[in-house]
Amino acid sequence: MSSTPNDPRTPVTVLGLGAMGSALAGAFVRAGHPTTVWNRTPGKADALVERGAVRADTVADAVAASPLVIVCVLDYAAALEILEPAGPGLSGRVLVNLTSDTPERARSAAAWAAGHGIDYLDGAVMVPTPDIGTPGATLLYSGSRQAFETYEETLKVLGGQAAYLGADHGAAAVYDLALLGFFYSAIAGLVHAFALAGAEGVAAEKFVPFTDAIVGILPPLAAGWARDADRGVFPGDQDNIVMEAAGIAHIIEASVDRGLNTEVLDAVKGLADRTIAAGHGKAGFISVIEEMRKPSAKG
Amino acid sequence: MSSTPNDPRTPVTVLGLGAMGSALAGAFVRAGHPTTVWNRTPGKADALVERGAVRADTVADAVAASPLVIVCVLDYAAALEILEPAGPGLSGRVLVNLTSDTPERARSAAAWAAGHGIDYLDGAVMVPTPDIGTPGATLLYSGSRQAFETYEETLKVLGGQAAYLGADHGAAAVYDLALLGFFYSAIAGLVHAFALAGAEGVAAEKFVPFTDAIVGILPPLAAGWARDADRGVFPGDQDNIVMEAAGIAHIIEASVDRGLNTEVLDAVKGLADRTIAAGHGKAGFISVIEEMRKPSAKG
Repeated sequence: MSSTPNDPRTPVTVLGLGAMGSALAGAFVRAGHPTTVWNRTPGKADALVERGAVRADTVADAVAASPLVIVCVLDYAAALEILEPAGPGLSGRVLVNLTSDTPERARSAAAWAAGHGIDYLDGAVMVPTPDIGTPGATLLYSGSRQAFETYEETLKVLGGQAAYLGADHGAAAVYDLALLGFFYSAIAGLVHAFALAGAEGVAAEKFVPFTDAIVGILPPLAAGWARDADRGVFPGDQDNIVMEAAGIAHIIEASVDRGLNTEVLDAVKGLADRTIAAGHGKAGFISVIEEMRKPSAKG
Repeated sequence: MSSTPNDPRTPVTVLGLGAMGSALAGAFVRAGHPTTVWNRTPGKADALVERGAVRADTVADAVAASPLVIVCVLDYAAALEILEPAGPGLSGRVLVNLTSDTPERARSAAAWAAGHGIDYLDGAVMVPTPDIGTPGATLLYSGSRQAFETYEETLKVLGGQAAYLGADHGAAAVYDLALLGFFYSAIAGLVHAFALAGAEGVAAEKFVPFTDAIVGILPPLAAGWARDADRGVFPGDQDNIVMEAAGIAHIIEASVDRGLNTEVLDAVKGLADRTIAAGHGKAGFISVIEEMRKPSAKG
């Protein structure tokens, strides 16, 4: 391999060309990297090849083309199915796995990679595909510090906010899943909001500007709650969970009256109700973290 | 009454001095309005009286003191219990109800107010108490347009973003509950994220800066989904719900392994799974709105 560490033109290989893999490969092509791509269904490479990427016929060929190999597929089972046969060919190269999965499977993959002499970095993409390749896009990495430092500039082609979270290969997955849990809960709430406003004839496009008011209060709230959570102190001077449970009950009531699904909000109310039952009615909402730290009631 | 419409020094009365009511009254006092306050437990007025508010001994006295009366309590049952005996005294005045409740109860309250010759505006506070009185704070109003226009400048003392949503007294409550549903879903997800990161020894204060990446993608996502929802077209070119359901399953698996509650995420996954079962696996996440528009499976 002739590539110099941090050479912005280092050759890269991308395995897996779903929506996210294609966006990753596209960012490398756009930045002028010699980019080799492979996908189980070869047709998915067509648009990238038109833009200058090289299609590899086999995973082994794809891996042989670059010192830096990125894989991004559905889950780690799919990733390992692709990588297993290429194991020997990956030896001495850097493998960056941007597939989303659990910390446990990230650590297993790291053990597998170590057994093959692969310099392994686990990662997570925290932005939707249209944001790939932008300076503000956040991607998280953990595992081999040497791999990260060698290819940091190259990885920043995918997203300018490239954060290294430490040597534990599972760390990126921990942050990834925690952030995704926040994301999916939030967007389920957003869809419910569109449905509830829509049930009263309010068009989503008329309603949506007001969601900015909610989005705007999340960062300072999160920062304050982080301090509270770390100290285990949940003041209720600005909000209290009895008031909040009453508010959630109103949302559920209005939603049921309109034939809408309330399962997400029922779950939130369950956490609030159990927090109140445990004697914390005057604490703030962050106090539900104590119930969140217990297994689900319904197993 | 000697007050001139839009006179910034118009006398105001605030009924109910919980955390929110106190913040509202405090904003009026700070802005130099003659402010009369009443609370069932009179001691809650002490801090406001020290800052210049006048304590009324009865609701009737409080109402008689100002042409503009604000009420903000737990729910409409509590509000009407306070207001009923003062009904005749409210005649000819403007009543602004900032209590959060359902659209149905907002419309009932409007009918009650009309019966007493009260010029009634229903409203909703979309920010936490510390933001009350700031130029960026959003409050929603619906009902009497004349009342809103007469006191718009005075109401902007509570929050600079005062939006009038139309003559239907229930409109503010519709927006309020839809936005609150989004809010509570989002913050439940945030608490889960702290719990999951915390279970791996990641302090919430170390983790929380990364939540900005998620918050940052919500507004453009919401704007795009609003267009999709209004058109009933759910493209899956940038995301698809089969990938997303796999991601949610990973979060649930990692959470269960750590003994954490997954009820909120179970509900989100249920919506995604039913959307896939209905044949929309290749659509984007917004397509769950069709399942959201059906009653909860478990009744």
